[in-house]
Amino acid sequence: MLLDEELLEDMAIGATILAVGGGGDPYIGKLLAREAIRKYGPIPVIDLADVPDDARLAFVAGLGAPGVLNEKLPRAEEIIAAVEVLEDHLGYRFTHLVPGEAGGLNAILPATAAAAHGIPMVDADGMGRAFPYMDLVTPTLHGGRISPMSIVDEHGNRIVLTSETNAWAEAIGRAAMVASGCMTMTALYPMTGAQAKQWLVGGTVSLAARLGRTVRTARADHRNPVDAIVDEHGAVRLFDGKVVDVARRIEGGWNRGEAVLDGIDAFGGQSMRVGFQNEYLIATLGGETVATTPDLIMTVILETGEPIPAEEIRYGYRVAVLGLSSDRQWRTDDGLALAGPRRFGYDLDFVPVCTPDAARPAS
Amino acid sequence: MLLDEELLEDMAIGATILAVGGGGDPYIGKLLAREAIRKYGPIPVIDLADVPDDARLAFVAGLGAPGVLNEKLPRAEEIIAAVEVLEDHLGYRFTHLVPGEAGGLNAILPATAAAAHGIPMVDADGMGRAFPYMDLVTPTLHGGRISPMSIVDEHGNRIVLTSETNAWAEAIGRAAMVASGCMTMTALYPMTGAQAKQWLVGGTVSLAARLGRTVRTARADHRNPVDAIVDEHGAVRLFDGKVVDVARRIEGGWNRGEAVLDGIDAFGGQSMRVGFQNEYLIATLGGETVATTPDLIMTVILETGEPIPAEEIRYGYRVAVLGLSSDRQWRTDDGLALAGPRRFGYDLDFVPVCTPDAARPAS
Repeated sequence: MLLDEELLEDMAIGATILAVGGGGDPYIGKLLAREAIRKYGPIPVIDLADVPDDARLAFVAGLGAPGVLNEKLPRAEEIIAAVEVLEDHLGYRFTHLVPGEAGGLNAILPATAAAAHGIPMVDADGMGRAFPYMDLVTPTLHGGRISPMSIVDEHGNRIVLTSETNAWAEAIGRAAMVASGCMTMTALYPMTGAQAKQWLVGGTVSLAARLGRTVRTARADHRNPVDAIVDEHGAVRLFDGKVVDVARRIEGGWNRGEAVLDGIDAFGGQSMRVGFQNEYLIATLGGETVATTPDLIMTVILETGEPIPAEEIRYGYRVAVLGLSSDRQWRTDDGLALAGPRRFGYDLDFVPVCTPDAARPAS
Repeated sequence: MLLDEELLEDMAIGATILAVGGGGDPYIGKLLAREAIRKYGPIPVIDLADVPDDARLAFVAGLGAPGVLNEKLPRAEEIIAAVEVLEDHLGYRFTHLVPGEAGGLNAILPATAAAAHGIPMVDADGMGRAFPYMDLVTPTLHGGRISPMSIVDEHGNRIVLTSETNAWAEAIGRAAMVASGCMTMTALYPMTGAQAKQWLVGGTVSLAARLGRTVRTARADHRNPVDAIVDEHGAVRLFDGKVVDVARRIEGGWNRGEAVLDGIDAFGGQSMRVGFQNEYLIATLGGETVATTPDLIMTVILETGEPIPAEEIRYGYRVAVLGLSSDRQWRTDDGLALAGPRRFGYDLDFVPVCTPDAARPAS
């Protein structure tokens, strides 16, 4: 697969859907990647299965406060520097770069560094969605180490962090990020090709592109994009409703809260609550939990399929709430311990979205 | 000079005096250094003038929250690791280690790493006193760079920070320290021997030892240690008084406030206020400022010469307030811009303590 300007447009739409309400706006990432594609040409995106065992990979990601990332635009220099600072520390060059997340800004940011370095991206990521913690990736489930990792900010400050655990890197790296102005770029989880094939969620870059194409072609054909997502990608329609209340608080830099929806059409007379912490995490129908993290809960405008970030959901929006199974790695005991509802402070067990497994890419 | 167990005892007392109320308790540093001396033998402390131009030096210091450093005891492993992490990054070994501060815990910590590595300490430091910010050192006045610097915590986390400015390293390093539990060890300000001779405050390790010996011998001879400090070290007796009020608040991890003293003996009928932010920074006599940072303001128990940390000063203490000129580098325009009263939020100009310059070691 070649990531060219057209595919990039689709991928940006799909990454916004897979961001499940958080993840940072891919728009800025798209602009940076487009510039890189125009300068260096389309970027090869290779299948996870085709990565040589001795390849050297890393995630490239923005680490910042969500609101700030939309105001202070990331620059290509810092994305590239994040990779180079880690390479200098490790003493070797990466052969491939991989998105840490399938959703949001971080789904697209690695493209800029890959293009500048003339190396391919891999059609994979470490979440199959977006999550708000750096340690919340499938490599953690396999003992994969987040560090050494680099943190580069817009002021020229550079950190190499070698942490005892992935959770420590999340805590220390996030504090350093806040102190340096809430907008940093990182290269992290250095891994071999053999490890990548064992650890990562495969096919998620192309899934984002296909999701985006579904929405784009449905709009062009005057079909309903939400129906198209459900029909073509096996998403489960959890609810159609109108937002009647949003409780929101900013806690420790997180956008936490809950949206209340009154059902419409087939869901008339019912009520759904959707809880979020940056990402949508919990969906409750008439008091019964019908979907939880790590499965994907997506909120899109009923008529257009436009994904609504949890930061922006508000009274009056008419939305569909869609569910999609997370990668099977997340649905294991270890996966649920790391990314289940309790990780986010909900006193709830995991409730799976019942999606046909076939609708998900193989991992 | 050889730092042996006897000299160490004196040095610990002197470092507490030069800590000017802050700096962290040298007691723990003394215990660690004593262990190192017993294991590796006395540590050579060489004159700044004798350091070869091509020597490779660095400061070794604890970076933590003052209260926490007294509860979580620093371990030799982390002090040594801080040096090694920076050496690994730089690709060379240090030939000498230097205290960043002449006062407090950090005056003594480098001894542990120097002993373990079998390299000398230098009779110098970067402040000639204690200050609560890592960028507040004389190398900063000469364009000396704090970084690359290492930060090592008790959990096994290791950071190499390369900052654009010394102030950025202070902000980012401090945030990382808080996130990792408020007790870290650092190696910082890598410099050559030629730079050290230009940048540092010389003779401060031996000054601490001499101050300590003064107090110790005065006590043994039943002389008043405060009189001895004044007589033998040119300290200015700013006030004798009883603490009648202390206003204290914890702001951003700092111990800020003001102690009010009613004069006794020759100072009867007068009132002094001593402002502090970790260290004592401002002394005001009857409304008139008589001493300010960067000069040294020391508060010691009248009868014993025991220095009182600003954290511990309280109602009823009978103390002498002593002043001592800071190193001449601090009394320049650049020095006062960096370490004068305004740096700490006081809307005051510098008021020098009038000490004979001869009483201070040459820098």
